[in-house]
Amino acid sequence: MEELLRANEGFDLSTLDAGSTPGFTGKKADGEKALELGSGELATLQEKLFAESRFGGQKSVLLVLQAMDTAGKGGIVDHVLGDTNPQGVKAFAFKAPTDEEKQHDFLWRIRKQLPPAGYIGVFDRSHYEDVLIHRVRGFSTPEAIEERYGLINEFEAELVASGTTLIKVMLHISKDEQKERLEARLDDPTKHWKFNPGDLDERALWADYQQAYQVAIERTGDVPWHVIPANHKWYARLAVQRLLLEKMRELKLDWPKADYDVDEQKARLADS
Amino acid sequence: MEELLRANEGFDLSTLDAGSTPGFTGKKADGEKALELGSGELATLQEKLFAESRFGGQKSVLLVLQAMDTAGKGGIVDHVLGDTNPQGVKAFAFKAPTDEEKQHDFLWRIRKQLPPAGYIGVFDRSHYEDVLIHRVRGFSTPEAIEERYGLINEFEAELVASGTTLIKVMLHISKDEQKERLEARLDDPTKHWKFNPGDLDERALWADYQQAYQVAIERTGDVPWHVIPANHKWYARLAVQRLLLEKMRELKLDWPKADYDVDEQKARLADS
Repeated sequence: MEELLRANEGFDLSTLDAGSTPGFTGKKADGEKALELGSGELATLQEKLFAESRFGGQKSVLLVLQAMDTAGKGGIVDHVLGDTNPQGVKAFAFKAPTDEEKQHDFLWRIRKQLPPAGYIGVFDRSHYEDVLIHRVRGFSTPEAIEERYGLINEFEAELVASGTTLIKVMLHISKDEQKERLEARLDDPTKHWKFNPGDLDERALWADYQQAYQVAIERTGDVPWHVIPANHKWYARLAVQRLLLEKMRELKLDWPKADYDVDEQKARLADS
Repeated sequence: MEELLRANEGFDLSTLDAGSTPGFTGKKADGEKALELGSGELATLQEKLFAESRFGGQKSVLLVLQAMDTAGKGGIVDHVLGDTNPQGVKAFAFKAPTDEEKQHDFLWRIRKQLPPAGYIGVFDRSHYEDVLIHRVRGFSTPEAIEERYGLINEFEAELVASGTTLIKVMLHISKDEQKERLEARLDDPTKHWKFNPGDLDERALWADYQQAYQVAIERTGDVPWHVIPANHKWYARLAVQRLLLEKMRELKLDWPKADYDVDEQKARLADS
């Protein structure tokens, strides 16, 4: 799955079908069953990651999620990581920066939320906002944004060098799909709180955002992007789970060996 | 359930049967089914709590878990809050304080982890360590510990006044049950990482810890404690879930009303 979804040299977002399901031929029910089947292994991998860190392991995992509004970032955390132990997952949703955050460089608030060793971090939006909305809305000068691509590559190289498995995902929905999802929110009073009139202002800039994503994906590919067709929520969830599974299997995680004499401790316990 | 488990005036920890299941007459399978049945409501309450906070709501929930080792604090987070959206839950496990933390008053590191409005926070250990292990081990003077009971009551009153629903839980296991659980850890190589020889040093001080809990429960009851028999893990999980449900129902949470004109936004969307 990882190779199929990776944005390699020459990747063109505009030609990717948001309704496709690369690497999976089944339907929704099959996809949900496959997701269920993978959840146990992911929970075990997470626990091993955590266990290793208690014995000095320095590995962590960071899943960065970027997408247009309604693409399902929040649902990923819920459905893909829902069966792992919440104590081993640090999910953080970045909003518009505060005044304090604006007074620091754009990576300052990002660094504060990085997962410690042993944890899976999930960023719902990230430092990429500073080359996406900033580019589209002109919040920063073109020169500043130009510089940020390089700073991001350096920052991510540093992360990887420190033991973080960085998995960058763009969930890709079509403009029509977003319309349907926004309509569903407006039609359901229990969902009105999720809608904001500003969402439509952003939607009006759809083409500009797609272009900003295209450039960001091209310019920050030292750690590769994975672009996941997300019109089918069940597929996007399965694809993210498989990405996590594939990358975490590569870590060759294992249960730490006891650093004490097990028999000696058993004898102490028996006497206690 | 809340009243049944509440440590009222005259509560005596030494007479509480850790193997009992107050308020529930079923067996393990029934308890697990009941837990499953309650999880949907808890997830909805959590989402409403979060939704309200997006529209200015100031409410949060903080579940404080204290217990002897192996009592199942970690499992509570996993099994009781596992079906809620991980993005709305902030679980934090307090370890031995760092050098920096030791240079501040004992509530400093606690305050940093308080749940923001809209969130359910879970503390696996807490400021109570400063009147439990500190008392048993003599890490602080009796005078300092004496003063802390009052400081804790003041701190918790402040929390409640700021909109936090504070739920304090001691999971109560028997000394024999702990022995079995530690044996199980030592018998299973995939669990060796969870064992530490120091656990047996603490176990040797069992009676002192029970006494420290008894005093803490008596002296910090302005916000009442709930002591949950936890020899049956399934019961402890169900009891915590029901406590959360009962306390969160009292918040009268509801979906926020739209602060925009829904029809106007529907028309804008249709044109977009």
